[in-house]
Amino acid sequence: MIINYSLRIDFVRAKSTKVGFANFPLSCRQNVTSAWSKFVSAKWKEASLKTSTEINSNEGSVCNENLSKGGKSMNIVWHKCSVEKIDRQELLQQRGCVIWITGLSGSGKSTLACALTRALHSRGKLTYVLDGDNIRHGLNSDLTFKPQDRAENIRRIGEVAKLFSDAGVICIASVISPYRKDRDACRSILPDGDFIEVFMDMPLHVCEARDPKGLYKLARAGKIEGFTGVDDPYEAPLNSEIVIQMEGEVCSSPEVMAEKVVCYLDAKGYLQA
Amino acid sequence: MIINYSLRIDFVRAKSTKVGFANFPLSCRQNVTSAWSKFVSAKWKEASLKTSTEINSNEGSVCNENLSKGGKSMNIVWHKCSVEKIDRQELLQQRGCVIWITGLSGSGKSTLACALTRALHSRGKLTYVLDGDNIRHGLNSDLTFKPQDRAENIRRIGEVAKLFSDAGVICIASVISPYRKDRDACRSILPDGDFIEVFMDMPLHVCEARDPKGLYKLARAGKIEGFTGVDDPYEAPLNSEIVIQMEGEVCSSPEVMAEKVVCYLDAKGYLQA
Repeated sequence: MIINYSLRIDFVRAKSTKVGFANFPLSCRQNVTSAWSKFVSAKWKEASLKTSTEINSNEGSVCNENLSKGGKSMNIVWHKCSVEKIDRQELLQQRGCVIWITGLSGSGKSTLACALTRALHSRGKLTYVLDGDNIRHGLNSDLTFKPQDRAENIRRIGEVAKLFSDAGVICIASVISPYRKDRDACRSILPDGDFIEVFMDMPLHVCEARDPKGLYKLARAGKIEGFTGVDDPYEAPLNSEIVIQMEGEVCSSPEVMAEKVVCYLDAKGYLQA
Repeated sequence: MIINYSLRIDFVRAKSTKVGFANFPLSCRQNVTSAWSKFVSAKWKEASLKTSTEINSNEGSVCNENLSKGGKSMNIVWHKCSVEKIDRQELLQQRGCVIWITGLSGSGKSTLACALTRALHSRGKLTYVLDGDNIRHGLNSDLTFKPQDRAENIRRIGEVAKLFSDAGVICIASVISPYRKDRDACRSILPDGDFIEVFMDMPLHVCEARDPKGLYKLARAGKIEGFTGVDDPYEAPLNSEIVIQMEGEVCSSPEVMAEKVVCYLDAKGYLQA
Protein backbone atom coordinates (compact mmCIF):
# COMPACT_ATOMS: atom_id res chain seq x y z
CA MET A 1 0.00 0.00 0.00
CA ILE A 2 1.33 3.41 -0.95
CA ILE A 3 0.39 6.24 1.30
CA ASN A 4 -0.28 9.50 -0.44
CA TYR A 5 2.09 11.95 1.17
CA SER A 6 0.85 14.89 -0.77
CA LEU A 7 -2.29 15.61 1.18
CA ARG A 8 -1.42 16.92 4.56
CA ILE A 9 -3.08 19.21 6.99
CA ASP A 10 -1.89 22.17 8.91
CA PHE A 11 -3.12 24.46 11.59
CA VAL A 12 -5.27 27.49 11.08
CA ARG A 13 -4.50 30.05 13.70
CA ALA A 14 -8.05 30.24 14.91
CA LYS A 15 -8.73 30.61 18.62
CA SER A 16 -9.37 27.31 20.27
CA THR A 17 -11.41 26.76 23.37
CA LYS A 18 -8.71 24.46 24.69
CA VAL A 19 -5.80 26.63 25.74
CA GLY A 20 -3.45 23.69 25.77
CA PHE A 21 -3.92 23.23 22.05
CA ALA A 22 -4.13 26.86 21.07
CA ASN A 23 -0.99 26.94 18.99
CA PHE A 24 -0.59 23.31 18.23
CA PRO A 25 -1.68 21.55 15.09
CA LEU A 26 -3.31 18.22 14.99
CA SER A 27 -0.99 15.75 13.40
CA CYS A 28 -0.07 16.89 9.92
CA ARG A 29 -0.52 13.34 8.76
CA GLN A 30 -4.08 12.74 9.78
CA ASN A 31 -5.16 11.98 6.27
CA VAL A 32 -3.43 8.64 6.57
CA THR A 33 -4.99 7.94 9.95
CA SER A 34 -7.48 5.37 8.87
CA ALA A 35 -5.12 3.42 6.65
CA TRP A 36 -2.46 3.51 9.32
CA SER A 37 -4.79 2.41 12.08
CA LYS A 38 -5.82 -0.54 9.96
CA PHE A 39 -2.20 -1.30 9.22
CA VAL A 40 -1.21 -1.12 12.88
CA SER A 41 -4.14 -3.28 13.78
CA ALA A 42 -3.11 -5.89 11.22
CA LYS A 43 0.47 -5.85 12.40
CA TRP A 44 -0.57 -6.18 15.99
CA LYS A 45 -2.59 -9.17 14.94
CA GLU A 46 0.49 -10.64 13.32
CA ALA A 47 2.17 -10.21 16.65
CA SER A 48 -0.55 -12.46 18.06
CA LEU A 49 -1.59 -9.87 20.59
CA LYS A 50 -5.13 -9.16 21.65
CA THR A 51 -6.16 -6.89 18.81
CA SER A 52 -9.31 -5.58 17.32
CA THR A 53 -9.85 -4.61 13.74
CA GLU A 54 -12.45 -2.12 14.90
CA ILE A 55 -10.86 1.26 14.49
CA ASN A 56 -12.14 4.24 16.34
CA SER A 57 -10.36 6.87 14.38
CA ASN A 58 -12.07 9.81 15.96
CA GLU A 59 -9.95 12.77 15.00
CA GLY A 60 -8.97 11.25 11.70
CA SER A 61 -12.56 11.00 10.67
CA VAL A 62 -13.09 14.72 10.90
CA CYS A 63 -9.94 15.55 8.96
CA ASN A 64 -11.77 15.61 5.72
CA GLU A 65 -12.37 18.73 3.75
CA ASN A 66 -16.07 18.04 3.53
CA LEU A 67 -16.35 17.71 7.25
CA SER A 68 -14.06 20.50 8.22
CA LYS A 69 -16.83 22.82 9.28
CA GLY A 70 -17.58 21.04 12.51
CA GLY A 71 -15.91 20.43 15.87
CA LYS A 72 -12.14 20.36 16.16
CA SER A 73 -11.80 20.30 12.42
CA MET A 74 -12.50 24.04 12.44
CA ASN A 75 -8.83 24.31 13.32
CA ILE A 76 -7.49 22.51 10.30
CA VAL A 77 -7.43 22.72 6.54
CA TRP A 78 -6.01 20.45 3.92
CA HIS A 79 -2.94 21.68 2.23
CA LYS A 80 0.43 20.50 1.14
CA CYS A 81 2.41 21.24 4.22
CA SER A 82 5.37 19.12 3.37
CA VAL A 83 8.25 19.26 0.98
CA GLU A 84 7.64 16.84 -1.87
CA LYS A 85 9.90 15.02 -4.30
CA ILE A 86 9.21 17.64 -6.95
CA ASP A 87 10.45 20.39 -4.61
CA ARG A 88 13.66 18.54 -3.86
CA GLN A 89 14.20 17.91 -7.56
CA GLU A 90 13.77 21.60 -8.22
CA LEU A 91 16.36 22.36 -5.56
CA LEU A 92 18.81 19.81 -6.98
CA GLN A 93 18.05 20.45 -10.64
CA GLN A 94 17.82 16.76 -11.36
CA ARG A 95 15.30 13.94 -11.16
CA GLY A 96 15.57 11.23 -8.54
CA CYS A 97 15.90 7.72 -9.92
CA VAL A 98 17.58 4.37 -9.35
CA ILE A 99 20.40 3.07 -11.53
CA TRP A 100 20.36 -0.65 -10.76
CA ILE A 101 23.64 -2.28 -11.83
CA THR A 102 23.35 -6.06 -11.98
CA GLY A 103 25.83 -8.73 -13.04
CA LEU A 104 28.14 -11.49 -11.92
CA SER A 105 30.73 -11.03 -9.22
CA GLY A 106 33.73 -9.48 -10.97
CA SER A 107 31.69 -8.09 -13.86
CA GLY A 108 32.63 -4.50 -12.95
CA LYS A 109 29.52 -3.30 -11.13
CA SER A 110 31.40 -1.39 -8.43
CA THR A 111 33.82 -0.01 -10.99
CA LEU A 112 30.97 1.39 -13.06
CA ALA A 113 29.20 2.72 -9.96
CA CYS A 114 32.38 4.48 -8.99
CA ALA A 115 32.98 6.02 -12.42
CA LEU A 116 29.33 6.98 -12.76
CA THR A 117 29.15 8.77 -9.43
CA ARG A 118 32.29 10.71 -10.40
CA ALA A 119 30.94 11.62 -13.83
CA LEU A 120 27.63 12.85 -12.44
CA HIS A 121 29.17 14.66 -9.50
CA SER A 122 31.44 16.54 -11.87
CA ARG A 123 28.27 17.78 -13.55
CA GLY A 124 26.93 19.02 -10.23
CA LYS A 125 24.50 16.14 -9.73
CA LEU A 126 23.86 14.51 -6.36
CA THR A 127 24.37 10.75 -6.42
CA TYR A 128 24.64 8.05 -3.82
CA VAL A 129 26.00 4.55 -4.28
CA LEU A 130 24.34 1.63 -2.51
CA ASP A 131 26.84 -1.15 -2.76
CA GLY A 132 25.50 -4.61 -2.04
CA ASP A 133 28.64 -5.54 -0.15
CA ASN A 134 28.74 -2.41 1.98
CA ILE A 135 25.07 -2.54 2.88
CA ARG A 136 25.68 -5.99 4.31
CA HIS A 137 27.91 -4.36 6.91
CA GLY A 138 25.11 -2.11 8.14
CA LEU A 139 21.43 -2.34 7.27
CA ASN A 140 21.65 -5.95 6.16
CA SER A 141 24.19 -7.18 8.67
CA ASP A 142 21.57 -9.54 10.08
CA LEU A 143 21.27 -11.42 6.79
CA THR A 144 23.14 -14.53 5.69
CA PHE A 145 23.57 -15.91 2.17
CA LYS A 146 20.69 -18.34 2.51
CA PRO A 147 18.26 -18.01 -0.41
CA GLN A 148 15.55 -16.23 1.57
CA ASP A 149 18.09 -13.85 3.09
CA ARG A 150 19.54 -13.06 -0.31
CA ALA A 151 16.07 -12.14 -1.53
CA GLU A 152 15.52 -10.01 1.57
CA ASN A 153 18.88 -8.33 0.94
CA ILE A 154 17.69 -7.26 -2.51
CA ARG A 155 14.26 -6.23 -1.26
CA ARG A 156 15.72 -3.92 1.38
CA ILE A 157 18.22 -2.37 -1.01
CA GLY A 158 15.34 -1.76 -3.42
CA GLU A 159 13.30 -0.08 -0.68
CA VAL A 160 16.21 2.11 0.38
CA ALA A 161 16.96 3.01 -3.24
CA LYS A 162 13.33 4.05 -3.57
CA LEU A 163 13.69 6.37 -0.58
CA PHE A 164 16.81 7.94 -2.09
CA SER A 165 15.05 8.37 -5.39
CA ASP A 166 12.16 10.00 -3.57
CA ALA A 167 14.69 12.31 -1.91
CA GLY A 168 15.63 13.49 -5.42
CA VAL A 169 18.96 11.68 -5.41
CA ILE A 170 20.30 9.69 -8.38
CA CYS A 171 20.79 6.45 -6.50
CA ILE A 172 23.24 3.93 -7.91
CA ALA A 173 22.67 0.39 -6.62
CA SER A 174 25.43 -2.08 -7.31
CA VAL A 175 24.30 -5.61 -6.49
CA ILE A 176 24.67 -9.01 -8.14
CA SER A 177 20.89 -9.50 -7.80
CA PRO A 178 20.90 -12.74 -9.82
CA TYR A 179 17.16 -13.41 -9.89
CA ARG A 180 14.83 -11.66 -12.31
CA LYS A 181 11.89 -11.70 -9.93
CA ASP A 182 13.83 -9.91 -7.19
CA ARG A 183 15.01 -7.19 -9.59
CA ASP A 184 11.54 -6.85 -11.07
CA ALA A 185 10.08 -6.47 -7.59
CA CYS A 186 12.43 -3.52 -7.01
CA ARG A 187 11.39 -2.05 -10.34
CA SER A 188 7.72 -2.42 -9.49
CA ILE A 189 7.85 -0.21 -6.40
CA LEU A 190 9.25 2.75 -8.34
CA PRO A 191 7.41 5.17 -10.64
CA ASP A 192 7.57 4.20 -14.31
CA GLY A 193 10.94 4.92 -15.85
CA ASP A 194 12.69 5.64 -12.56
CA PHE A 195 14.23 2.16 -12.32
CA ILE A 196 17.05 2.02 -14.82
CA GLU A 197 18.56 -1.45 -15.05
CA VAL A 198 22.16 -1.68 -16.23
CA PHE A 199 23.25 -5.20 -17.11
CA MET A 200 26.98 -5.88 -16.88
CA ASP A 201 26.96 -8.52 -19.58
CA MET A 202 30.43 -9.96 -19.07
CA PRO A 203 31.32 -13.58 -19.82
CA LEU A 204 31.73 -15.79 -16.78
CA HIS A 205 35.30 -16.70 -17.73
CA VAL A 206 36.28 -13.04 -17.73
CA CYS A 207 34.71 -12.43 -14.32
CA GLU A 208 36.28 -15.59 -12.95
CA ALA A 209 39.71 -14.65 -14.26
CA ARG A 210 39.42 -11.35 -12.43
CA ASP A 211 38.01 -12.94 -9.25
CA PRO A 212 38.66 -9.72 -7.29
CA LYS A 213 37.43 -11.15 -4.00
CA GLY A 214 38.83 -14.64 -4.42
CA LEU A 215 35.32 -16.04 -4.17
CA TYR A 216 35.27 -17.97 -7.45
CA LYS A 217 38.30 -19.88 -6.21
CA LEU A 218 36.52 -20.73 -2.98
CA ALA A 219 33.40 -21.75 -4.91
CA ARG A 220 35.33 -23.97 -7.36
CA ALA A 221 37.10 -25.56 -4.42
CA GLY A 222 33.71 -26.42 -2.98
CA LYS A 223 34.31 -24.21 0.03
CA ILE A 224 31.23 -22.11 -0.58
CA GLU A 225 28.00 -23.28 -2.11
CA GLY A 226 25.30 -21.49 -4.03
CA PHE A 227 27.74 -19.07 -5.65
CA THR A 228 26.25 -17.16 -8.58
CA GLY A 229 27.66 -18.35 -11.89
CA VAL A 230 29.24 -21.45 -10.39
CA ASP A 231 26.50 -23.49 -8.75
CA ASP A 232 23.72 -20.94 -8.65
CA PRO A 233 22.17 -19.34 -11.73
CA TYR A 234 22.41 -15.76 -12.89
CA GLU A 235 19.22 -14.82 -14.68
CA ALA A 236 20.22 -12.24 -17.27
CA PRO A 237 17.84 -9.30 -17.69
CA LEU A 238 15.54 -9.56 -20.70
CA ASN A 239 14.76 -5.89 -21.12
CA SER A 240 17.32 -3.88 -19.21
CA GLU A 241 17.55 -0.23 -20.14
CA ILE A 242 21.31 -0.41 -20.66
CA VAL A 243 23.63 -3.31 -21.49
CA ILE A 244 27.39 -3.06 -20.99
CA GLN A 245 29.33 -5.58 -23.07
CA MET A 246 32.87 -6.22 -24.18
CA GLU A 247 33.76 -5.07 -27.65
CA GLY A 248 35.38 -8.16 -29.06
CA GLU A 249 37.87 -9.04 -26.37
CA VAL A 250 38.23 -5.54 -25.02
CA CYS A 251 36.30 -4.08 -22.11
CA SER A 252 35.42 -0.43 -22.27
CA SER A 253 37.07 1.89 -19.79
CA PRO A 254 35.04 2.85 -16.71
CA GLU A 255 34.68 6.36 -18.10
CA VAL A 256 33.24 5.09 -21.38
CA MET A 257 30.81 2.81 -19.57
CA ALA A 258 29.76 5.65 -17.27
CA GLU A 259 29.27 7.98 -20.23
CA LYS A 260 26.83 5.52 -21.74
CA VAL A 261 24.69 5.75 -18.61
CA VAL A 262 25.05 9.52 -18.37
CA CYS A 263 23.87 9.86 -21.98
CA TYR A 264 20.83 7.75 -21.18
CA LEU A 265 20.01 9.88 -18.13
CA ASP A 266 20.47 13.04 -20.11
CA ALA A 267 18.26 11.83 -22.96
CA LYS A 268 15.52 10.82 -20.50
CA GLY A 269 15.61 14.19 -18.74
CA TYR A 270 17.00 13.02 -15.39
CA LEU A 271 19.77 15.60 -15.38
CA GLN A 272 17.42 18.53 -15.04
CA ALA A 273 14.43 19.29 -12.83
CA MET B 1 32.96 -2.97 11.19
CA ILE B 2 33.22 0.25 9.23
CA ILE B 3 34.71 -0.06 5.77
CA ASN B 4 36.95 2.78 4.77
CA TYR B 5 35.51 3.99 1.51
CA SER B 6 38.16 6.60 0.96
CA LEU B 7 40.93 4.36 -0.28
CA ARG B 8 40.06 3.02 -3.66
CA ILE B 9 42.02 1.98 -6.68
CA ASP B 10 41.72 2.84 -10.27
CA PHE B 11 43.30 1.86 -13.53
CA VAL B 12 46.52 3.14 -14.93
CA ARG B 13 46.36 3.11 -18.69
CA ALA B 14 49.42 0.96 -19.08
CA LYS B 15 49.49 -1.74 -21.73
CA SER B 16 48.49 -5.10 -20.42
CA THR B 17 49.53 -8.45 -21.79
CA LYS B 18 45.94 -9.63 -21.50
CA VAL B 19 43.99 -7.93 -24.25
CA GLY B 20 40.69 -8.70 -22.59
CA PHE B 21 41.64 -6.55 -19.62
CA ALA B 22 43.46 -3.81 -21.47
CA ASN B 23 41.04 -1.05 -20.60
CA PHE B 24 39.41 -2.54 -17.61
CA PRO B 25 40.22 -1.75 -14.01
CA LEU B 26 40.41 -4.27 -11.28
CA SER B 27 37.59 -3.68 -8.85
CA CYS B 28 37.75 -0.18 -7.44
CA ARG B 29 37.04 -1.65 -4.06
CA GLN B 30 39.85 -4.10 -3.74
CA ASN B 31 41.14 -2.49 -0.60
CA VAL B 32 38.20 -4.02 1.22
CA THR B 33 38.74 -7.42 -0.35
CA SER B 34 40.18 -9.17 2.63
CA ALA B 35 37.65 -7.85 5.13
CA TRP B 36 34.84 -8.65 2.73
CA SER B 37 36.04 -12.17 2.00
CA LYS B 38 36.16 -12.82 5.74
CA PHE B 39 32.72 -11.34 6.13
CA VAL B 40 31.27 -13.40 3.31
CA SER B 41 32.88 -16.48 4.70
CA ALA B 42 31.39 -15.83 8.12
CA LYS B 43 27.95 -15.21 6.65
CA TRP B 44 28.11 -18.36 4.61
CA LYS B 45 28.93 -20.16 7.82
CA GLU B 46 25.85 -18.66 9.42
CA ALA B 47 23.91 -20.08 6.54
CA SER B 48 25.20 -23.49 7.62
CA LEU B 49 26.75 -24.10 4.25
CA LYS B 50 30.05 -25.81 3.65
CA THR B 51 32.33 -22.86 4.20
CA SER B 52 35.95 -22.24 4.88
CA THR B 53 37.42 -19.35 6.77
CA GLU B 54 40.54 -19.75 4.71
CA ILE B 55 40.54 -16.83 2.33
CA ASN B 56 42.48 -16.89 -0.86
CA SER B 57 42.32 -13.21 -1.60
CA ASN B 58 44.71 -13.29 -4.50
CA GLU B 59 44.23 -9.99 -6.28
CA GLY B 60 43.29 -8.18 -3.11
CA SER B 61 46.66 -9.00 -1.61
CA VAL B 62 48.50 -7.15 -4.33
CA CYS B 63 46.30 -4.09 -4.13
CA ASN B 64 48.60 -2.42 -1.70
CA GLU B 65 50.73 0.56 -2.54
CA ASN B 66 53.85 -1.15 -1.29
CA LEU B 67 53.29 -4.14 -3.49
CA SER B 68 52.12 -2.36 -6.59
CA LYS B 69 55.36 -2.82 -8.44
CA GLY B 70 54.84 -6.49 -9.30
CA GLY B 71 52.49 -8.61 -11.40
CA LYS B 72 48.94 -7.51 -12.13
CA SER B 73 49.27 -4.71 -9.65
CA MET B 74 51.34 -2.79 -12.24
CA ASN B 75 47.97 -1.81 -13.66
CA ILE B 76 46.65 -0.19 -10.52
CA VAL B 77 47.39 2.63 -8.13
CA TRP B 78 45.76 3.74 -4.96
CA HIS B 79 43.73 6.89 -5.17
CA LYS B 80 40.41 8.30 -4.20
CA CYS B 81 38.33 7.31 -7.16
CA SER B 82 34.97 7.83 -5.56
CA VAL B 83 32.84 10.75 -4.52
CA GLU B 84 32.95 11.09 -0.76
CA LYS B 85 30.61 12.61 1.82
CA ILE B 86 32.73 15.76 1.93
CA ASP B 87 32.29 16.21 -1.85
CA ARG B 88 28.52 15.86 -1.63
CA GLN B 89 28.44 18.31 1.26
CA GLU B 90 30.40 20.80 -0.80
CA LEU B 91 27.88 20.37 -3.62
CA LEU B 92 24.92 20.82 -1.28
CA GLN B 93 26.49 23.49 0.91
CA GLN B 94 25.38 21.75 4.06
CA ARG B 95 26.51 18.95 6.35
CA GLY B 96 24.74 15.60 6.43
CA CYS B 97 23.30 14.65 9.79
CA VAL B 98 20.37 12.93 11.47
CA ILE B 99 17.68 14.80 13.40
CA TRP B 100 16.12 12.05 15.49
CA ILE B 101 12.72 13.14 16.80
CA THR B 102 11.53 10.90 19.63
CA GLY B 103 8.43 11.03 21.81
CA LEU B 104 5.06 9.51 22.58
CA SER B 105 2.43 8.90 19.95
CA GLY B 106 0.64 12.23 19.52
CA SER B 107 3.54 14.29 20.88
CA GLY B 108 3.94 16.14 17.59
CA LYS B 109 6.91 14.34 16.00
CA SER B 110 5.49 14.29 12.48
CA THR B 111 4.29 17.86 12.85
CA LEU B 112 7.76 19.03 13.80
CA ALA B 113 9.35 16.93 11.02
CA CYS B 114 7.00 18.54 8.56
CA ALA B 115 7.66 22.09 9.73
CA LEU B 116 11.39 21.48 9.92
CA THR B 117 11.68 20.11 6.39
CA ARG B 118 9.76 23.17 5.16
CA ALA B 119 11.95 25.58 7.10
CA LEU B 120 15.17 24.03 5.86
CA HIS B 121 13.98 23.63 2.29
CA SER B 122 13.08 27.30 2.18
CA ARG B 123 16.73 27.98 3.03
CA GLY B 124 17.84 25.84 0.11
CA LYS B 125 18.82 22.84 2.22
CA LEU B 126 18.16 19.25 1.16
CA THR B 127 16.24 17.28 3.77
CA TYR B 128 14.47 13.96 3.84
CA VAL B 129 11.95 12.74 6.39
CA LEU B 130 12.00 9.13 7.51
CA ASP B 131 8.68 8.65 9.24
CA GLY B 132 8.42 5.56 11.39
CA ASP B 133 4.89 4.93 10.21
CA ASN B 134 5.64 5.32 6.52
CA ILE B 135 8.75 3.16 6.63
CA ARG B 136 6.59 0.35 7.96
CA HIS B 137 4.77 0.34 4.64
CA GLY B 138 7.97 -0.31 2.70
CA LEU B 139 11.36 -1.27 4.10
CA ASN B 140 9.92 -2.51 7.38
CA SER B 141 6.70 -4.01 6.07
CA ASP B 142 7.89 -7.43 7.24
CA LEU B 143 7.99 -6.33 10.87
CA THR B 144 5.27 -6.65 13.49
CA PHE B 145 4.96 -4.82 16.79
CA LYS B 146 6.54 -7.63 18.76
CA PRO B 147 9.37 -6.33 20.98
CA GLN B 148 12.19 -7.74 18.84
CA ASP B 149 10.56 -6.40 15.67
CA ARG B 150 10.16 -2.96 17.21
CA ALA B 151 13.86 -2.93 18.01
CA GLU B 152 14.67 -4.07 14.46
CA ASN B 153 12.39 -1.32 13.13
CA ILE B 154 14.49 1.27 14.95
CA ARG B 155 17.78 -0.35 13.97
CA ARG B 156 16.91 -0.27 10.28
CA ILE B 157 15.69 3.31 10.39
CA GLY B 158 18.94 4.23 12.12
CA GLU B 159 20.96 2.49 9.40
CA VAL B 160 19.01 4.18 6.61
CA ALA B 161 19.32 7.56 8.34
CA LYS B 162 23.06 6.97 8.46
CA LEU B 163 23.13 6.38 4.70
CA PHE B 164 21.20 9.60 4.09
CA SER B 165 23.52 11.49 6.37
CA ASP B 166 26.48 10.03 4.46
CA ALA B 167 24.80 11.21 1.27
CA GLY B 168 25.02 14.75 2.67
CA VAL B 169 21.30 15.00 3.36
CA ILE B 170 19.83 16.44 6.57
CA CYS B 171 17.78 13.39 7.49
CA ILE B 172 14.83 13.86 9.82
CA ALA B 173 13.73 10.65 11.51
CA SER B 174 10.40 10.76 13.25
CA VAL B 175 9.88 7.65 15.36
CA ILE B 176 8.51 6.95 18.83
CA SER B 177 11.66 4.94 19.61
CA PRO B 178 10.73 4.45 23.26
CA TYR B 179 13.87 2.65 24.44
CA ARG B 180 17.05 4.46 25.27
CA LYS B 181 19.29 1.61 24.19
CA ASP B 182 17.76 1.51 20.69
CA ARG B 183 18.19 5.26 20.22
CA ASP B 184 21.71 5.14 21.61
CA ALA B 185 22.56 2.34 19.19
CA CYS B 186 21.51 4.59 16.31
CA ARG B 187 23.59 7.40 17.75
CA SER B 188 26.62 5.13 18.07
CA ILE B 189 26.84 4.31 14.36
CA LEU B 190 27.08 7.97 13.36
CA PRO B 191 30.08 10.29 13.55
CA ASP B 192 30.21 12.39 16.72
CA GLY B 193 27.72 15.20 16.69
CA ASP B 194 25.84 14.01 13.63
CA PHE B 195 23.04 12.40 15.65
CA ILE B 196 20.87 15.18 16.99
CA GLU B 197 18.20 13.90 19.32
CA VAL B 198 15.06 16.00 19.66
CA PHE B 199 12.85 14.98 22.57
CA MET B 200 9.18 15.87 22.22
CA ASP B 201 8.62 16.21 25.95
CA MET B 202 4.83 16.36 25.99
CA PRO B 203 2.75 15.10 28.91
CA LEU B 204 0.98 11.82 28.30
CA HIS B 205 -2.43 13.35 29.00
CA VAL B 206 -1.88 15.90 26.24
CA CYS B 207 -0.83 13.24 23.74
CA GLU B 208 -3.71 11.03 24.76
CA ALA B 209 -6.22 13.85 24.40
CA ARG B 210 -4.98 14.39 20.86
CA ASP B 211 -4.88 10.64 20.03
CA PRO B 212 -4.53 11.40 16.32
CA LYS B 213 -4.57 7.77 15.28
CA GLY B 214 -7.12 6.56 17.77
CA LEU B 215 -4.56 4.19 19.20
CA TYR B 216 -4.70 5.35 22.82
CA LYS B 217 -8.40 4.54 22.81
CA LEU B 218 -7.68 1.05 21.50
CA ALA B 219 -4.94 0.59 24.08
CA ARG B 220 -7.12 1.78 26.97
CA ALA B 221 -9.87 -0.53 25.79
CA GLY B 222 -7.40 -3.40 26.01
CA LYS B 223 -7.59 -3.98 22.28
CA ILE B 224 -3.89 -3.53 21.73
CA GLU B 225 -1.16 -4.41 24.16
CA GLY B 226 2.30 -3.05 24.68
CA PHE B 227 1.36 0.47 23.69
CA THR B 228 3.95 3.07 24.61
CA GLY B 229 2.79 5.27 27.48
CA VAL B 230 -0.12 3.00 28.36
CA ASP B 231 1.28 -0.45 29.14
CA ASP B 232 4.76 -0.10 27.77
CA PRO B 233 7.33 2.42 29.03
CA TYR B 234 8.72 5.44 27.25
CA GLU B 235 12.29 6.01 28.39
CA ALA B 236 12.84 9.74 28.15
CA PRO B 237 16.22 10.82 26.79
CA LEU B 238 18.71 11.89 29.43
CA ASN B 239 20.93 14.05 27.27
CA SER B 240 19.08 14.90 24.11
CA GLU B 241 20.48 17.81 22.14
CA ILE B 242 17.09 19.54 21.96
CA VAL B 243 14.00 19.33 24.17
CA ILE B 244 10.63 20.59 22.99
CA GLN B 245 8.25 21.33 25.84
CA MET B 246 4.99 23.12 26.44
CA GLU B 247 5.22 26.60 27.85
CA GLY B 248 2.80 26.41 30.70
CA GLU B 249 -0.27 24.99 29.06
CA VAL B 250 0.54 26.23 25.60
CA CYS B 251 2.38 24.29 22.91
CA SER B 252 4.62 26.21 20.59
CA SER B 253 3.62 26.47 16.96
CA PRO B 254 5.29 24.06 14.54
CA GLU B 255 7.24 26.96 13.08
CA VAL B 256 8.61 27.97 16.48
CA MET B 257 9.60 24.39 17.28
CA ALA B 258 11.26 24.04 13.88
CA GLU B 259 13.13 27.29 14.35
CA LYS B 260 14.63 25.96 17.55
CA VAL B 261 16.10 23.04 15.62
CA VAL B 262 17.22 25.23 12.72
CA CYS B 263 19.05 27.52 15.17
CA TYR B 264 20.83 24.52 16.64
CA LEU B 265 21.90 23.29 13.18
CA ASP B 266 23.05 26.74 12.23
CA ALA B 267 25.08 27.16 15.42
CA LYS B 268 26.72 23.78 14.92
CA GLY B 269 27.66 24.55 11.33
CA TYR B 270 25.35 22.04 9.61
CA LEU B 271 23.86 24.65 7.30
CA GLN B 272 27.07 25.21 5.41
CA ALA B 273 29.67 22.93 3.87
